[in-house]
Amino acid sequence: MRYPANYCQVCGHPLEDRFAHGKMRRVCPSCGFIHFEDPKVAVVALIEHEGRVLLVRRRFDPEKGKWALPAGFVDDGEDPTLAVVREVREETGLEVAVTGLLDVSAGTGRSGASIIITYTATVTGGSARPQDDADDILWLDPTDPLPDLAFDSTRQALRRWQVR
Amino acid sequence: MRYPANYCQVCGHPLEDRFAHGKMRRVCPSCGFIHFEDPKVAVVALIEHEGRVLLVRRRFDPEKGKWALPAGFVDDGEDPTLAVVREVREETGLEVAVTGLLDVSAGTGRSGASIIITYTATVTGGSARPQDDADDILWLDPTDPLPDLAFDSTRQALRRWQVR
Repeated sequence: MRYPANYCQVCGHPLEDRFAHGKMRRVCPSCGFIHFEDPKVAVVALIEHEGRVLLVRRRFDPEKGKWALPAGFVDDGEDPTLAVVREVREETGLEVAVTGLLDVSAGTGRSGASIIITYTATVTGGSARPQDDADDILWLDPTDPLPDLAFDSTRQALRRWQVR
Repeated sequence: MRYPANYCQVCGHPLEDRFAHGKMRRVCPSCGFIHFEDPKVAVVALIEHEGRVLLVRRRFDPEKGKWALPAGFVDDGEDPTLAVVREVREETGLEVAVTGLLDVSAGTGRSGASIIITYTATVTGGSARPQDDADDILWLDPTDPLPDLAFDSTRQALRRWQVR
């Protein structure tokens, strides 16, 4: 979900609807601040190791208990390739290196992301243990049936991986 | 530049520094709102037509008067492939179709973007005339010397295109 922009983050004055930069936006009539709704960007890791791919089970909603690729949100100013390495470390303890850019897609809304950047990655250190947002892990073999997946983007990325 | 988050956009209460979701963030002690700094995402079009690539001259700062690929920011909830088509239309009047994903990179800061997604595209209609943020256009031949470019990301994308 997105939160309403009622007040100016800079000066605290109530915001108003005004046409700015091509569309109606929330603008501060006192200090001129324009509230741009920047996209929430998720980075996703498809980690390949000995022919299998790492999935994590989500500890929290949305989609608690379902399986997904390790993923998380990018903060402003953060390099997305570093963000995905950080997220994998936080959720699994694994150290990985990005090996390629698999896909950029638009989020469907259920994940909360509006842009999803999926990278392929390889293990460079550590061993996978669930932690932080993950409460279990699974190394998926391409011939295994898929477990209950959290997001369409997970299914798409795995399908792309399985048909290679 | 980024603006300070002094006040809660939801309830107007002054924000405080608190540790939330892995780092110090601005949090509202009254309503619990967490001010996430989402990345500014730029989409860039490398439009190929009869062996040449379209550049636009920037009407405004940053880098006013210098040349760049047609580009702009993605709003929250906007599909990045639709955003790039919209930006090309706004700046040049051309209708284009995205043909591929060329690159995702981290912004250096000068452009204001922290994530830059570059797509290749092809012309499907219209004719190029500078408008909106662009005050001139140029169809660059791969053997031409490069004009004065606004951003490193432009140079990188063109280099990648020229060496293919």
